[in-house]
Amino acid sequence: MTTTFGAPSTLRSGSDVDLGPAVELVSKEEGHRQPLAPEFVSAEDFSPLEVAYDFGRITREEIEAGPRNIWRYKRLLPVPSNVEEIPNTEPGCTKLIRADRLAAELGVKRIWVKDDTGNPTHSFKDRVVAVALAAAREFGFQVLACPSTGNLANAVAAAAARAGWDSVVLIPSSLERAKVLTTAVYDGSLIAIDGNYDDVNRLATELAAENETWAFVNVNVRPYYSEGSKTLAYEVAEQLGWRIPEQIVVPIASGSQLTKVDKGFKELGEVGLVDPTPYKVFGAQATGCSPVSHAFKSGHDVVQPVKPDTIARSLAIGNPADGPYVLDTVSRTGGSIEDVTDEEVVAGIRLLARTEGIFAETAGGVTVATAKKLIEAGKIDPDAETVLLITGDGLKTLDAVEDHIGPKATVPPNVDAVTKVLRG
Amino acid sequence: MTTTFGAPSTLRSGSDVDLGPAVELVSKEEGHRQPLAPEFVSAEDFSPLEVAYDFGRITREEIEAGPRNIWRYKRLLPVPSNVEEIPNTEPGCTKLIRADRLAAELGVKRIWVKDDTGNPTHSFKDRVVAVALAAAREFGFQVLACPSTGNLANAVAAAAARAGWDSVVLIPSSLERAKVLTTAVYDGSLIAIDGNYDDVNRLATELAAENETWAFVNVNVRPYYSEGSKTLAYEVAEQLGWRIPEQIVVPIASGSQLTKVDKGFKELGEVGLVDPTPYKVFGAQATGCSPVSHAFKSGHDVVQPVKPDTIARSLAIGNPADGPYVLDTVSRTGGSIEDVTDEEVVAGIRLLARTEGIFAETAGGVTVATAKKLIEAGKIDPDAETVLLITGDGLKTLDAVEDHIGPKATVPPNVDAVTKVLRG
Repeated sequence: MTTTFGAPSTLRSGSDVDLGPAVELVSKEEGHRQPLAPEFVSAEDFSPLEVAYDFGRITREEIEAGPRNIWRYKRLLPVPSNVEEIPNTEPGCTKLIRADRLAAELGVKRIWVKDDTGNPTHSFKDRVVAVALAAAREFGFQVLACPSTGNLANAVAAAAARAGWDSVVLIPSSLERAKVLTTAVYDGSLIAIDGNYDDVNRLATELAAENETWAFVNVNVRPYYSEGSKTLAYEVAEQLGWRIPEQIVVPIASGSQLTKVDKGFKELGEVGLVDPTPYKVFGAQATGCSPVSHAFKSGHDVVQPVKPDTIARSLAIGNPADGPYVLDTVSRTGGSIEDVTDEEVVAGIRLLARTEGIFAETAGGVTVATAKKLIEAGKIDPDAETVLLITGDGLKTLDAVEDHIGPKATVPPNVDAVTKVLRG
Repeated sequence: MTTTFGAPSTLRSGSDVDLGPAVELVSKEEGHRQPLAPEFVSAEDFSPLEVAYDFGRITREEIEAGPRNIWRYKRLLPVPSNVEEIPNTEPGCTKLIRADRLAAELGVKRIWVKDDTGNPTHSFKDRVVAVALAAAREFGFQVLACPSTGNLANAVAAAAARAGWDSVVLIPSSLERAKVLTTAVYDGSLIAIDGNYDDVNRLATELAAENETWAFVNVNVRPYYSEGSKTLAYEVAEQLGWRIPEQIVVPIASGSQLTKVDKGFKELGEVGLVDPTPYKVFGAQATGCSPVSHAFKSGHDVVQPVKPDTIARSLAIGNPADGPYVLDTVSRTGGSIEDVTDEEVVAGIRLLARTEGIFAETAGGVTVATAKKLIEAGKIDPDAETVLLITGDGLKTLDAVEDHIGPKATVPPNVDAVTKVLRG
């Protein structure tokens, strides 16, 4: 580990950085503008900072001629102009699968599954981390860091390894051994913290303040990191033949992904890459951590924090930073938000696996089960097409299904025994 | 389960099937020809049957305009002309990653990693199973089946689910719970057999004989199934800009994959899609199951069966059916075969993860460690480029690394404690 401590400032900002079409940061509440820098909260109104762009003219042909990963959309992202030449993971261009058997089971006309299990570490986090790494390098950071309980830890450790960077990944010491191993294998500085995820998160913010060369992907470079989720919208639209789907169901953790998918669709319309057709965004939560769903159903515009208790751990953020923006987006587009029990989550995982051969993590189970509930309630139009975002892999959350599935039977090695089971 | 038992023959063969460019089966030893049928051994010379083709004219443009999966190569595979329209998984078009950090560590000019962890169930088995399913449907089979200890079970169960077919997957009852779960979730007929893998395999052959509508992918439709591995060669060549790499390292289980990669390169040259430039094929085994490596190093052309004892379970075939053909291919191309200890396998997994952020299963560790050994021995030319086939995912073989990796430390939630560990 050659991590630098207390080194003099080597960070760049403003016009000293090339982040492609990104021109400024803007505060979400009051629209205050400031130069590009590794900052995440406006000093003016204390709201989150978001990247503002000057896109210029972008053509479909130019994108289609780009690499088969998220860097084909580099002119819509806060990344250097030559980003595809710099060592990094190459997430994205995951499959959009026409799910006719699932659609038939749910009684709707057409469902598409955006299957992000095909990413390098098998979750959408590879998208956001790759963008964070690209921006962080341009600012002059030297270490990639995060607090995490799973998918983010994998993605940060893998991306840092590919780039030849040191990584510092902080996890609660109680984390399941499988998630520890899938991070530790990349040989960064994985450190277990005696405390819960809130303790780990607080520690990350303190460490970010004390170590100027550490880019905590979801803290000090969060405005860049979160833009990576827009690529889900870009890909879905391109894969549909350059059009926006009528309905999309997105799981809600911090809420960032849902708002960025919406932002992605809007931008595509604004720059003329697609017709700006109407679309509805639906949000999915687990009932055991459903503060945004609760606020939506109660008609509140404030999200009351909760203490999470659900098997969908990758969505278990009790105080979601982008909750209010999720409520705005869903209301504006005419969507809805629903939540599902842990039993429904497992049923959702099994339904998707049985009908489409796709094994999703618990968050995917939340998305599928919520879609089912919204269809049954008449909120999702069965005659319009729907995209489901499956953002992570079932191999990482085996514990959620292990009490529910297994072999049909255990029999001696002879034909009659097998035949009897199958005829049974 | 609606599996049909003892139904009258519904199977088709010969000119009644559309398997695209496939025209006949030919015996590997004496070249006896026979019509296309679900058979795998020649009645004439008892050697394995292989698919013979009439390719006609195929252009790069036609392939490049095809879908982003193995069906872009349908005119080089034994599959129906409209294969991409039939429900199936969509494997392939996985990443070919330029591994500069790994190359630097190994002291060679250029290494490419073909990363097949990006397939639907995260191994190359999705390729062969998808081709087997497509051919099996054309023959009139109604059930997809296999004996397996891991990756194949996942791939068969998932592909059958996508297609809406029943599946019968037979596993030894001692199989690790994680591998059972990742197959059971697709809700086919997963049956645990009280016996070892040899017992399960024997039972599969008996069941295939008794159940005419069951396609055992690696038994009665094996000639079609195994052709799926050619797509690894096609993709590597296309991703390199339509040229054959100078050197390629392929893991050896049955040996089928290695011979099919060679066949794929040869075919590309024959149909004029690439220049038929020379290439060397290298084989990789784990020392605990290295009958082909042993035969190669001893100069034998017969492979003596062994009892496997290695952590690389997906390669642990003690009596590899295609062993002699592997020896032919490697000798003809000027390659070599080497084997590595379980300790070297783990080191190989860790080297690839640390340098490139790619977490391979034990078979990938075998490939990386063998490449290292062949480079050090001067068998692989450091000034020529080398492709490494990484055919499966580390998430499925966590047990192999769990005693070797973990957090750097477990500390209380404060900045000083973390800093002390990192300065350590």
